[in-house]
Amino acid sequence: MVDIATRVYNHKWKIDPIVRSLIDTDFYKLLMCQSVFRNKANTTVTFSLINRSKHIPLADMIDEGELREQLDHVRSLSLTRGESTWLRGNTFYGKRQMFTSDFMEWFEGLRLPAYHLERRGDQYELTFEGNWPEVMLWEIPALSILMELRSRAVTGSMGRFELQVLYARAMTKLWEKVERLKPLDDLRIADFGTRRRHSYLWQDWCVQAMTEGLGDKFTGTSNCHIAMKRDLEAVGTNAHELPMVYAALSKTDDELANAPYAVLADWHEEHDGNLRIILPDTYGTRGFLDRAPDWLAGWTGIRIDSGDPATGAEIAIDWWKKRGEDPTQKLIIFSDGLDADKIIALHKQFTGRVRTSFGWGTLLTNDFRGLTDHDSLAPFSLVCKAISANANPTVKLSDNPNKAMGPKEEISRYKRVFGVGDQVAQDVVV
Amino acid sequence: MVDIATRVYNHKWKIDPIVRSLIDTDFYKLLMCQSVFRNKANTTVTFSLINRSKHIPLADMIDEGELREQLDHVRSLSLTRGESTWLRGNTFYGKRQMFTSDFMEWFEGLRLPAYHLERRGDQYELTFEGNWPEVMLWEIPALSILMELRSRAVTGSMGRFELQVLYARAMTKLWEKVERLKPLDDLRIADFGTRRRHSYLWQDWCVQAMTEGLGDKFTGTSNCHIAMKRDLEAVGTNAHELPMVYAALSKTDDELANAPYAVLADWHEEHDGNLRIILPDTYGTRGFLDRAPDWLAGWTGIRIDSGDPATGAEIAIDWWKKRGEDPTQKLIIFSDGLDADKIIALHKQFTGRVRTSFGWGTLLTNDFRGLTDHDSLAPFSLVCKAISANANPTVKLSDNPNKAMGPKEEISRYKRVFGVGDQVAQDVVV
Repeated sequence: MVDIATRVYNHKWKIDPIVRSLIDTDFYKLLMCQSVFRNKANTTVTFSLINRSKHIPLADMIDEGELREQLDHVRSLSLTRGESTWLRGNTFYGKRQMFTSDFMEWFEGLRLPAYHLERRGDQYELTFEGNWPEVMLWEIPALSILMELRSRAVTGSMGRFELQVLYARAMTKLWEKVERLKPLDDLRIADFGTRRRHSYLWQDWCVQAMTEGLGDKFTGTSNCHIAMKRDLEAVGTNAHELPMVYAALSKTDDELANAPYAVLADWHEEHDGNLRIILPDTYGTRGFLDRAPDWLAGWTGIRIDSGDPATGAEIAIDWWKKRGEDPTQKLIIFSDGLDADKIIALHKQFTGRVRTSFGWGTLLTNDFRGLTDHDSLAPFSLVCKAISANANPTVKLSDNPNKAMGPKEEISRYKRVFGVGDQVAQDVVV
Repeated sequence: MVDIATRVYNHKWKIDPIVRSLIDTDFYKLLMCQSVFRNKANTTVTFSLINRSKHIPLADMIDEGELREQLDHVRSLSLTRGESTWLRGNTFYGKRQMFTSDFMEWFEGLRLPAYHLERRGDQYELTFEGNWPEVMLWEIPALSILMELRSRAVTGSMGRFELQVLYARAMTKLWEKVERLKPLDDLRIADFGTRRRHSYLWQDWCVQAMTEGLGDKFTGTSNCHIAMKRDLEAVGTNAHELPMVYAALSKTDDELANAPYAVLADWHEEHDGNLRIILPDTYGTRGFLDRAPDWLAGWTGIRIDSGDPATGAEIAIDWWKKRGEDPTQKLIIFSDGLDADKIIALHKQFTGRVRTSFGWGTLLTNDFRGLTDHDSLAPFSLVCKAISANANPTVKLSDNPNKAMGPKEEISRYKRVFGVGDQVAQDVVV
């Protein structure tokens, strides 16, 4: 039976929107947004898209008109009543009313600010400028739009059954990973794959497959829209953008050296328990931990997002011991470039020594490697970062020099201030 | 949008019928049925289900009540107006009105006759007795019902995503075969997989995938219902049941020796062109061809359905040459236990020497080998054969002694009459 109404409704779409909700974004974006709304609302920031994979000629593959339509569509979105109810009434990390009334009222009235789009050679320059709490919410939709338009560009010329087989292969590939992860005792793994997903529907499929395949070992998704729709935990804590902007706002070197701790001091006031997760690598993990105040050692865990993850975890464990903390009571969240092999190896190496958890991103929601000719659907490294705050450039050093960003002379200054010496470069795949 | 009417309609099904149409059967069954209706209408035959794969305990896996429901459902079917129109109005093998008005009137009034079902150990005894033109139409639905109930028995305990991945793997597996066949020049291949399909929907998917993947090289399907629905050629000519029953009706050894030619003499009157295909192996290919009348050498082709296919094809080519025919103008149809490797090898070996065509059956529509634990969905060898005609047992020798059937003493008599000596045994996989 054809449902005529559905058909007609489908035909009405001028575009097939990639982002259909303001909460089709990472949960930590909302947590950070609330923190910024409270502590730094009047900061002016610029976010910019950066394609680290220069060999992907995004501007040749993606029609500018289509890209504008998708971005314009996001600007037309506002929080629906159901979404608002969910954010206000749901329990996050065991806590009710995670989001304050102040923040929710502001969010309910929000439309995303204007964007600036220009073609430069075979790449797009896409920037967002304005108030930090508004502009920061562009990051995830901008990335998912570009990722999915690229997927559509590649799949556009494929036949119906060729397409079905493509997804059949991708499903099989993911399921084989799930079957390998299933036997791991006490595994805790979550979906962190919104920003670089192949597509919304594919992420939704991956999340459901993880739910069925891993049961309780699958602890949730960073994607609020999918968490709401599939009745899962929304997970995530905080990201580099906080220390990067706080650092850029610093007036002196002393203030700069203190900026990463100032961020976490603000966070400390707002959150407790499993939300107290340190992200130590923005300006070098080792120095950050050496100079950290003792109250930070009391936090629940550390997220390792760059550098060799096993080394990072050993550094964290040593640090906790030095500060008189029991590592077996602590949590390490691995979230950088994970895939099944790495997860299995890290799980094995650290089980019993520390609690572990895995935030599985791009290779969960976009592992189409090897499934098409010329690997035309392989994921690539696209980011959308704060590049300036109140007209000062931002800087990131990371534990991997290939992930560093900022003007050269500023990088040197930051390296001096944070005492960062030689670093080991790691390939950035995704 | 939920289509409430569809939901309610779906709920109404007491059973989910496996066979939903009387023409969900092989085209050659209808051609043979018409021939029998014309030439041997008053023959009483018994057809019986034979599970050659004794290790599959069908009666343990399939609930008898469910099996009866499915068989009863088939007995409730009659030709729809659309089906009748298609059979009367469509072109088959380039010919209009393939089916006579007489036959169509009879077919339009037909309901399938009663069945006899009994459990014997871990197997079912399923037999059909009555007038040949009616009883013969049970073969394909009976086989597809048992095959699909077995699939349902295995898949019944699988999770939703586990199931989706199962089909994803099966799709990938078939598509890889399609991609290997695609480059073969002048390939002609058809679906012969109705009787041992994994399920109706899966056969339908396979046929559509072949259509997209192989284009003109995919020449059609033996399944009338799918041919009608997907606007494809319905293909197929004749089967062993004709010589087997004609032989069983013979009163003397001389008549017996002539029976296989008598069948084809009747067929000669009814059909020409690509429908004049000899199936020579019922009582041994070599003897059949040696003793064949010259008018048979004028027929279009030969179907090789048992024994080593390359050997069979060489015998056919030699025979045509001996009879003064040009083999390059002749057609050999391979239809026994084919899979991509064998198709590619045979195509390579015979290209340029003879026209070839492939009837791909079980390993097209039911290749779930290796996709589940303990290979619980691997296809198996189930047949439904005429075992007697007017109270005489039928006999089949075949070019593979493992495919022989009939009472021992009758097999000896047939071997003597048809001059069949030693034969090479071949495994019967499907």
